[in-house]
This record gives sequence, structure tokens and C-alpha cells, in this order.
Amino acid sequence: MKEKDFLMIPGPTPVPESVLLAIAKHPIGHRSKEFSKIFMSATEKLQWLAQTKNEVYIYTASGTGAMEGAISNLVNCGDKVLSLVIGVFGQRFADIAKIYGAEVTILKAEPGKAIQEQDLKEALAKDNYKFVTITHSETSTGTANDIYQLIPIIKKSGALVLMDAVTSLGCMKLEMDKLEIDVLVSGSQKGFMLPPGLSFIYVSEAALKAKEECKAPGYYFCWKQARKALKDNTTPWTPNVSFIVGLELALTKMQEEGLDNIYARHARLRDSLREGIKDLGLKLLCADHDASAAITAIVPPENIAVPDIRKTIKEDWGITVANGQKELENKIFRMGHLGFVCDRDILMGLAALEKTLVKLGYKIPEKLRV
Amino acid sequence: MKEKDFLMIPGPTPVPESVLLAIAKHPIGHRSKEFSKIFMSATEKLQWLAQTKNEVYIYTASGTGAMEGAISNLVNCGDKVLSLVIGVFGQRFADIAKIYGAEVTILKAEPGKAIQEQDLKEALAKDNYKFVTITHSETSTGTANDIYQLIPIIKKSGALVLMDAVTSLGCMKLEMDKLEIDVLVSGSQKGFMLPPGLSFIYVSEAALKAKEECKAPGYYFCWKQARKALKDNTTPWTPNVSFIVGLELALTKMQEEGLDNIYARHARLRDSLREGIKDLGLKLLCADHDASAAITAIVPPENIAVPDIRKTIKEDWGITVANGQKELENKIFRMGHLGFVCDRDILMGLAALEKTLVKLGYKIPEKLRV
Repeated sequence: MKEKDFLMIPGPTPVPESVLLAIAKHPIGHRSKEFSKIFMSATEKLQWLAQTKNEVYIYTASGTGAMEGAISNLVNCGDKVLSLVIGVFGQRFADIAKIYGAEVTILKAEPGKAIQEQDLKEALAKDNYKFVTITHSETSTGTANDIYQLIPIIKKSGALVLMDAVTSLGCMKLEMDKLEIDVLVSGSQKGFMLPPGLSFIYVSEAALKAKEECKAPGYYFCWKQARKALKDNTTPWTPNVSFIVGLELALTKMQEEGLDNIYARHARLRDSLREGIKDLGLKLLCADHDASAAITAIVPPENIAVPDIRKTIKEDWGITVANGQKELENKIFRMGHLGFVCDRDILMGLAALEKTLVKLGYKIPEKLRV
Repeated sequence: MKEKDFLMIPGPTPVPESVLLAIAKHPIGHRSKEFSKIFMSATEKLQWLAQTKNEVYIYTASGTGAMEGAISNLVNCGDKVLSLVIGVFGQRFADIAKIYGAEVTILKAEPGKAIQEQDLKEALAKDNYKFVTITHSETSTGTANDIYQLIPIIKKSGALVLMDAVTSLGCMKLEMDKLEIDVLVSGSQKGFMLPPGLSFIYVSEAALKAKEECKAPGYYFCWKQARKALKDNTTPWTPNVSFIVGLELALTKMQEEGLDNIYARHARLRDSLREGIKDLGLKLLCADHDASAAITAIVPPENIAVPDIRKTIKEDWGITVANGQKELENKIFRMGHLGFVCDRDILMGLAALEKTLVKLGYKIPEKLRV
């Protein structure tokens, strides 16, 4: 049953029917008062979501575009950047900074591990960094950095903090102003309950000041263009008006649920999934205290291949789960539980996973059976 | 009646219900075989649309993003660029080239006029240009350059041709391979019968070769990333899967209509509108032979202000028309007739415009009355 397929990947994620239907409305003119009203309402709600008074710009682009926007508006050739890398997307931030000529130092943690406080302190002590890039929730490993512990340490060094919150914003506690984060990026197909197509970049006053000194070329993602247009309640280039209408509705729903409830729901989904995985006798890539509330990385049983698990759970149960990426390909599989996901989805996902593993010859360890 | 509003602007343009409903389907995974099949089908149909064997990359971005992609993949600091400017979007191409450090020479035509053959020859004779930027249909004035006359002249000079076909592709005859165009950019909310959110960049072998020598930074719009992913039947970053599903359907519809029929329809819509405008005794910004098949720029009657026309036709008849841009603001208004537009729409638009002008005190010249 084709239309019954269900995504449990880190994105695209499930989208409410009402949001899909809002997106399907005939597009309105992007220079109309009607659009400006919706756009500014979405903008204000985005500020609420990240708990910030900073400006936020909506890009018609995916999260990687916003990551480039974080770098291309700030980094000059030769600038010293410390990149905290706990997976593929942390490395991507470092790669983009290198492309823009930065001298990048990488502080890396093993797959499934978060950056440790002491390692960060030591890395920061070694040089005078202008920028530090950090991933909140690493999509490739389901590992989360403890930003409430790490960011104050970075801020103390005087570096500006550029944070990838692509799979954390709208899932995990994140107060931009309280933490004094300088640049925050996220994407629509994650916690936002929207399809992929929009990304968001929040910029602090300090970041806007640093932008003044940046000589890197850039146009589409340029903050000056976005700022100027924002003052006129619009975007500098023709935006995806349909998705901005959907975004405004999705954010309204998120406000109705409330931030604390959203965080609690994602934590509960994560914990239920992790408990269920443990009950099946499987290993998890990260320890409980490092686990993202958005994605869970699971180590397959010995002798059962990840592609077989993915194929069987898709064919038999219509559920898509993700493989590992790069060095983790076929070593883990990942289940996303962010955005428009409820407790029933986890129950269903676990049941389907159990059936899948048993079909593939896995024996649930006796001691774990109730 | 809010949902009865009708856009006659240069974009967003009307979208077929079937395409809107395709977009509204639940997003599928972008790393699935199902998506790859749709993506590659859309890619092949895009090649058909521009009559080319060249590669085409689909960006999740608006047309301006693709314009930046044309420059950021090719232009080095100090490269000599000749920009043919017949309006705001021609100027934008020049501006982006300047941002990337090019030495830009501008050949400008008066608003409403196209670039003349002799002027182009003289401009090209003055220097040795590496790139020439040209607009096919200038959105801000409704003027079209005669690309079948001008491009062979540019090619003879040895320069690479970067063409903005944002409002012409899918509306006006354009054979990329026959004309040996090197880079072609377009956007989804124009002739494609889609909302804004995607753009397209076609690149010739010569352009790909020139890319090898380009030192400008860039990541999201980088052709190398797009090429590598295309070989795997996918995109490098999470794309707007919903819109790519819609694109594939819209292109299928375009193939059903056929290229010649599409061109003939747009020419007929343009001619009907222009005849009707003349019958009302109004002036058109450009001469018939320079008129774009996608957008028509109309000079308002003396003593009737453009904002009043726009307000009245919107309030009384639910039709949105566009103002002029920059120096043409309040000097012209623009009616779009590209994409999912039929003869009835022009009849309706003209009738509503007549009612609007009469309400605002305009007297149709006696001699023109039948």
C-alpha cells in the first residue's frame, strides 16, 4: 500500500495533513500585504521557538544552504575556526569554513560520543579562535552535545558560536539568547513538521557586527539583503510562499503544544525507543546521557546486515529507516522521531522492528523475554 | 472571495490543481529509489524543455540562487564580464558578477528596448571578455532579447554565454545546444506551472571545463557536488522532494502539450493582450518585435496612478497585477501571462482592466470604440 508508507528517518519527517493542505493552496504574491502578514507572523514564531530577540532570516534552501550562510557572511580567509565534530554534519560545517579560506582546527569525538568539557577547554587554550562551529544534535549519529555545558565555555574564550541546530530546534531545549549563541541554523524538514525546502538562520548583534568585516562573496544568502527586506516585512528574493504559509501554520501548532510539552514529548519518544531497543537485546550507538531527542542510532545484531533490515521493514511494514552515513554505513541504522511524531509511532516502529529482526533470523535473548 | 484571487504577475503564476495536489502528498525519502526515479525523470524532461544534452542541476532555491550559481562556479577575481542589461534582472546578474570580483562592463538598453546587434558587436570589439551575461526575457520590463540573433555574435567572440531564462524557459523558443549557450538558469514559479521554491541550472561542457579553473568559494550551489550526486541519481543536499514530485508532473503535462504548442500559446496570449491594450488606447512599454511572450508592461493612462489601478483591479476583480520595479515604479504596470495561463485568462484580464480604468475615470478614446 504505497500511500501508507511511513518515514522514520531523520528527515523528511511526517507532516500533518493540515500543513500539507495549507501548502497545496494556490500560491499568493510574495509582494502582497497578505504574504507579509503571514511572513512576519512566521518570523515572530521562529523567534519564540529559539527563545530569542535576534533577527531570523528564512531561506528558500535546505539546511546546508543555511550552514553556508553562517560561514559566507562571517569568515574571512585565514580566520581561525575551531570545529567541534561529532559526525558528518559537524564535518560539513568544517568543510564549508575551509572552502571560505578559514584555518580550521578540528576537535573530534568518536562516533556516538559527545564533545567533552575538558577536551574543549584544552582545544580553546591552544589558539585564539574567532569562530567555533558546534552541532547540537548530530543527525548522522543521534548524538547530542550538551550545549548548556559547552557553549558558556566557548563564549568565555571570546569566539563567536555558530551552531547547527538542524535536527534539534523544535525538539530539544535551546534558548539562543540565554546561551548567547551567535548564529543558529535549522531546516524545515526536521522538528518543524514541514517537508524539506526552507531553512532558517538566526543572527546575534555580535554576528551582524562581524558581518561588516567579512569580505567573502555571497548574494543569495547575504544577511544584508535579508535584513533590508525584513525591514519591509518580506524576503529579498522570491521565496517559497507555499512553504512559508505552511510554516506559519506549523509554528502555530507548535505554540499550541507549548515548548515544554514539545521537549518532553521528544524526550519521551527517545526514551521509549531506547528502552524498546534495549528490550530487544540490541545495542545503541550512544550512551543515554548523550542521546539526541530527535534521532536514535542502533547497532544491528551480529550477522544481520543493515540493508536487509531496511529492505524488510520497508517491504513488510512500509517503514523507512536510515542507514549510517560514511564510515558508519552498514554499521548502524537510524530511526528518526522528530517533528510530527507521537507515542503510537514509536510503539509501531518497535513492533515492526521486532518482527523484521525475527524474520531475518534474530533470536531475542531469553533473559530479556518477559 | 479570498480563494478566488488570481495572479497576473510575473511570478508566482497559476498552478494546476493536479500539481498542487501532487505537492501536497506526504514527502518521500530523498535517498529512496522511488525518489531517484522521479528526480531523474524530471531531470530528463528539463533537458527536453531546453533542447539540450547538457547536465541540469535542480536547486532548492529561487532563480536568484541559480544566477549566483552561474557566477560562483565560474568567475574568478579580475575576470572580464560583459553584462547585457535591459532591466533589473540583467543588472542583478552584473551585480553578482561584481560581488565575485569580476571586472564588469555593462551594455545597457533603455527600458523597454532590447540589445541591438550593432551595439553588441561594438561592445565585444572593445575588450576580450571571458563571460557575457544576457537576459532572455527581462521580467522587469517584459522585453525579450533576440537570442537567435545575439548569441551567435557573442559565441563568435569566444566568450562563454551565461543566460537568465527565468521567465522565458517554457514560454519562448530556446534551444540550448543549437545556440551553444554555456549556462542557462530558470525558476519554478515561471513557465513551469509550479510555485516558487526550485531553480534550474544547465551547464555546457565548456562551462564545466571553466569551472575547473574557478577559485571562488561556494558549497550549496557547487556544480561538483551536484554532478557527483547526479551520477547517483540524486541531489547533494536534501532537496524539496515535494516540489520535485510536482515538477515531474508539470513537465509531463508540458510534454503532452508539446514545445511548439507551448510557444504558440504564449505568443498568442501575448498578442491578444497587446491587441486588447491597444484597443483600450493605452501604450505598451516595448515595441511588438521586442515583446516577451511571458510578461507585458503597460503604461498607465495620464492622471491615473499605477497603485490605484493595482488596488482597484485587486479589490473589484480579485486580480493581482505587478507594479514596475526601481526606476519604472509607478511608471508601468505588468501583467504576467506565463505558465498555466489560457486564452480565457487574457480575455478576463482585459475585461477587468477596462472596468478598472473606467471606474478610475479613464475615457476610452472615441475613435477606438467599435
